[in-house]
Amino acid sequence: MKLADIQGPKDIKKLSIEELEDLASQIREFLIDSISQTGGHLSSNLGVVELTLALHYVFSSPEDKMIFDVGHQSYVHKILTGRLEGFKTLRQYKGMSGFQKRNESIHDSWESGHSSTSLSAALGFAVARDLQHKKNHIIPIIGDGSISSGMAMEALNQIGSEKRNMVIILNDNNMSISKNVGALDAALTRLRTSQSYNTIKGDVSSMLSQSKVGKNVLESMRHVKNVVKENVVDTSIFGEFGLDYIGPVNGHNLKTLIKTLHLAKQHKGPIVVHVITKKGKGYSYAENDCEGVWHGVSAFDKKSGEFITKVEKNTKSWSQVIADAVEKEMSQRKNVTVITPAMISGSKLRNIFQKYPERSFDVGIAEEHAITFAAAQALQGLRPFVSIYSSFMQRAYDQLNHDVARMSAPIVVGIDRAQLVGEDGETHHGVFDIALLQTLPNFILAQPKDYIEANQIVKTAFHQKKYPFAIRYPRGSVSVTSCNSIEIIGIGTWTKFLVGNQEPKGIVISYGPAVDQIISLAKAENQSILVINARFLKPMDYAMLDMLAMLNLEIVVYAKDLAAGGLYSEISRYYHKQKQKVSLLSIAIEDTFVEHGAIELLEQSQKIDLEALFEIIRKW
Amino acid sequence: MKLADIQGPKDIKKLSIEELEDLASQIREFLIDSISQTGGHLSSNLGVVELTLALHYVFSSPEDKMIFDVGHQSYVHKILTGRLEGFKTLRQYKGMSGFQKRNESIHDSWESGHSSTSLSAALGFAVARDLQHKKNHIIPIIGDGSISSGMAMEALNQIGSEKRNMVIILNDNNMSISKNVGALDAALTRLRTSQSYNTIKGDVSSMLSQSKVGKNVLESMRHVKNVVKENVVDTSIFGEFGLDYIGPVNGHNLKTLIKTLHLAKQHKGPIVVHVITKKGKGYSYAENDCEGVWHGVSAFDKKSGEFITKVEKNTKSWSQVIADAVEKEMSQRKNVTVITPAMISGSKLRNIFQKYPERSFDVGIAEEHAITFAAAQALQGLRPFVSIYSSFMQRAYDQLNHDVARMSAPIVVGIDRAQLVGEDGETHHGVFDIALLQTLPNFILAQPKDYIEANQIVKTAFHQKKYPFAIRYPRGSVSVTSCNSIEIIGIGTWTKFLVGNQEPKGIVISYGPAVDQIISLAKAENQSILVINARFLKPMDYAMLDMLAMLNLEIVVYAKDLAAGGLYSEISRYYHKQKQKVSLLSIAIEDTFVEHGAIELLEQSQKIDLEALFEIIRKW
Repeated sequence: MKLADIQGPKDIKKLSIEELEDLASQIREFLIDSISQTGGHLSSNLGVVELTLALHYVFSSPEDKMIFDVGHQSYVHKILTGRLEGFKTLRQYKGMSGFQKRNESIHDSWESGHSSTSLSAALGFAVARDLQHKKNHIIPIIGDGSISSGMAMEALNQIGSEKRNMVIILNDNNMSISKNVGALDAALTRLRTSQSYNTIKGDVSSMLSQSKVGKNVLESMRHVKNVVKENVVDTSIFGEFGLDYIGPVNGHNLKTLIKTLHLAKQHKGPIVVHVITKKGKGYSYAENDCEGVWHGVSAFDKKSGEFITKVEKNTKSWSQVIADAVEKEMSQRKNVTVITPAMISGSKLRNIFQKYPERSFDVGIAEEHAITFAAAQALQGLRPFVSIYSSFMQRAYDQLNHDVARMSAPIVVGIDRAQLVGEDGETHHGVFDIALLQTLPNFILAQPKDYIEANQIVKTAFHQKKYPFAIRYPRGSVSVTSCNSIEIIGIGTWTKFLVGNQEPKGIVISYGPAVDQIISLAKAENQSILVINARFLKPMDYAMLDMLAMLNLEIVVYAKDLAAGGLYSEISRYYHKQKQKVSLLSIAIEDTFVEHGAIELLEQSQKIDLEALFEIIRKW
Repeated sequence: MKLADIQGPKDIKKLSIEELEDLASQIREFLIDSISQTGGHLSSNLGVVELTLALHYVFSSPEDKMIFDVGHQSYVHKILTGRLEGFKTLRQYKGMSGFQKRNESIHDSWESGHSSTSLSAALGFAVARDLQHKKNHIIPIIGDGSISSGMAMEALNQIGSEKRNMVIILNDNNMSISKNVGALDAALTRLRTSQSYNTIKGDVSSMLSQSKVGKNVLESMRHVKNVVKENVVDTSIFGEFGLDYIGPVNGHNLKTLIKTLHLAKQHKGPIVVHVITKKGKGYSYAENDCEGVWHGVSAFDKKSGEFITKVEKNTKSWSQVIADAVEKEMSQRKNVTVITPAMISGSKLRNIFQKYPERSFDVGIAEEHAITFAAAQALQGLRPFVSIYSSFMQRAYDQLNHDVARMSAPIVVGIDRAQLVGEDGETHHGVFDIALLQTLPNFILAQPKDYIEANQIVKTAFHQKKYPFAIRYPRGSVSVTSCNSIEIIGIGTWTKFLVGNQEPKGIVISYGPAVDQIISLAKAENQSILVINARFLKPMDYAMLDMLAMLNLEIVVYAKDLAAGGLYSEISRYYHKQKQKVSLLSIAIEDTFVEHGAIELLEQSQKIDLEALFEIIRKW
């Protein structure tokens, strides 16, 4: 059967194992080819080709609900549910999403983007099914990295006690985005390397008869219900959670997978099917990747495995600039530590982890713990730097409030991927963090406009010792400029730039890389304006704001973040409280979730691009 | 030794077991007597009298760090660290805190109030200790309810892999505030009822020789290091997390406790000491309490066990009013479910859980899971009501954003304990939720001013089906008034009250119970003002705001919540954006964490009491 002929999951149910295996090859070839052109999530999808085929072979979507945790590994599911054509526009503006999306297909019943929600979702679905007297199956597919996150364990705790039917697929590739960490990973390794798996010969009857449970299952299929439980429960972490367990199973052997899933489908109560997969399977560059380089990729050359990226000369990613500045602090201050929740690669911390292993901590997908762990270090005299993506930091709001801000623990937070992130879309845009941090007494929040200011702000953050200090920075790169010495800057101070050769006709307050873009374009258009670099979002520069109010000029606050709780909101509140009458305009993202696509297009659609700003400026 | 003679923990180190037992009796008597007068946390403290004595006997605070999870069970620790006098002002304004407090004593090195932070804190302390080449012990004391929360499990995962020295005391009373739930609780029950514990005769050598580990330990104390591990690891959930384990131990037998803690103290690497305690031990009313009635109490009569509360006639707690309204919806709509994270008693859900067991879910201390579990139910046609305290909802911000708001899952959230809560203090004030929810597209947020409006808003929340809908309400009670029929109200509509017999001289915009208080006082003072009931905080009543702007009167926004991101902030932003010139004053909690004490006193100290408002009104 040809890939292009698949209309929906029903089409594959008639196929033989050999035909399915052929389909798996076609899918792999298609994925590598397609993603090499559009970019996207490669490794995780190559790892679940057979697993997804087997799931759709054994279960019946859309009645049966497949919930892919995070969802970036749902590409094969998309192919099998009639969305092959969509890959041409994968992750592009108005194109197909890189995650499960309910408005894309009836086969997508849940959406995510952040990890570890699938088990809570599955239990919610199961409760609804049971109260509505339906009989469908519910199949969360969760990775070994995601399952050790706190939220997933909270769900497991209730799933094990509620005992509702569901088939939990543990997609175990021994990786999060990069190598997994933590004690639970060690527990899974014990299972992974257990006798039963090592003796699998690619045939389920052989495999199952080696495991304690298998023999019984084969002897008497009608006793599946209790047999699994009685025999395997006590040997695994899942038993402690009250869950039945079957596995481990070779995730690239369709015959084994299908037979095992058939068993699990008949099981009463929640059961974990432990499937061992290889991330990047079938593409050697991705298979040999331990660092997560092939997790989410831009376009690449299939043959050479080289990425087709135009790195502009003398630029560095913001993540790298901040990491380098932190590394410098580590070399000078012996009490600086670094903490990441499973983002060593994305946050460019590889160097630091290699150079300072005893001061570097990858805590796994555990944002809540990461922040409180840091707070405690800080209270005992260390100066931890927590590198965390803006949208994932949302998981740790309470810890930032209750453990950090309340005790004024002087941690430094690097808020990576702030502002719009582009192709990852709704779940990943880092546009909420300013509003969140504005609510936190003691917290300082800054965003540098350029390379030098980034270095100054990092230095300032570690120089002061009294307050928690967050530094946000976007995706993308920044020009590296030389600087002889990096100076400490005043907390809460803004800077101003008078552009043009006439009296300024209006004022723009902005922050981050936008500041220099505004200045450049204003110069090019010969506009005379006053541009304010609001590099501290908390506290603000109140003296500057007072001065601006006296100029009697229209002020535009130009932000690429959420309006509510953002800079405009704070400035607006300040001016009203001070009874200062100003004409204050806002450019920001209004009350909406922004879709996926190239950042430029998204900025246009949200009317927060430079053009939107200059329409106002040109009228002054 | 008399209780009053204890200056610090050193004083108890010389005592014999008999003297310690006598001290335990004195402490119990003191706690019951003292708390019966001031109110406070009773049951949990009565449960840890011997445990805390043993900890201070074996370890040396302040060098050794005792981290009480949540901290409401640190009263005995306070007594032993020279704070006996403080109990006269327990939880009172400017008096002693009901939690560990760093500025109260050098023996308090960590603070909390929310559960499950102690393990992350302990690991942070351990990293600092090791990098600073210190040798002190770190002893987190965590309950069996708290340890199954996601954040604690994230910490366990790293603790088990880092292998740093620490003694984790699992204070297992089989309760959170009320009865524990979940699969892990079942796992603990298996340990609790294991052979070793059942045969304890109050003597550690007898106990230990019954357990697998004990015999070896006694034979060769110098091998403690590995012995524990080799013998017990594989029999418990903690083994799966890579943690050594000893227990269970009778938490009310000082001799056993002391000897066991001595063993644990010599152990290398992290070890869990499983201590079985009885909540409320020594006070029969509290001992027999399964519902958490004696967890946190107001003043009571020691003998009769009756609470000395002045319940005003015809009033009900806000929690009860909302719970009753939800119960009514459950009787009419078969798809309404109720979810609570371990707060059945506090949220007054007892009736609902008894009447509708199949639609009621206590998920344990698991706020993150609770919200996503609800979102999934809602997407499948159910209408879940999640009852959650404002300050604990902070744990689930990302889930409210990513899983609820983004998919517009029509859950109903009951935000209990909104605004200042009084005696529990900094960690418990519910003043952040408005700012958090303002950032969430699709979300509706309302706060009723009285009994009838509470019923109207609950009905409206379930009547509409498109949006997630949050209803916030404070501690305390509300007058019950009769109402023939409850009407659906328009989402985003405010109401106005013209007070006085002259033209209004100014406008007050407020929400919640404050609205009627303002009206009453204005009437009493014969002030002519326009009072606006901003019962929807999101979306606001923009038509009303436009109308108000045209009146050319001064407007005060009177809020008992955080200023940043609060109602004033949103109104301010709106008026600036609309280019409507208004004189807009703010009364709200500025950028600070509010301490503990009676709500009236806190409102005065924050200048958010009615008097602060009427100082402005009287000048009009």
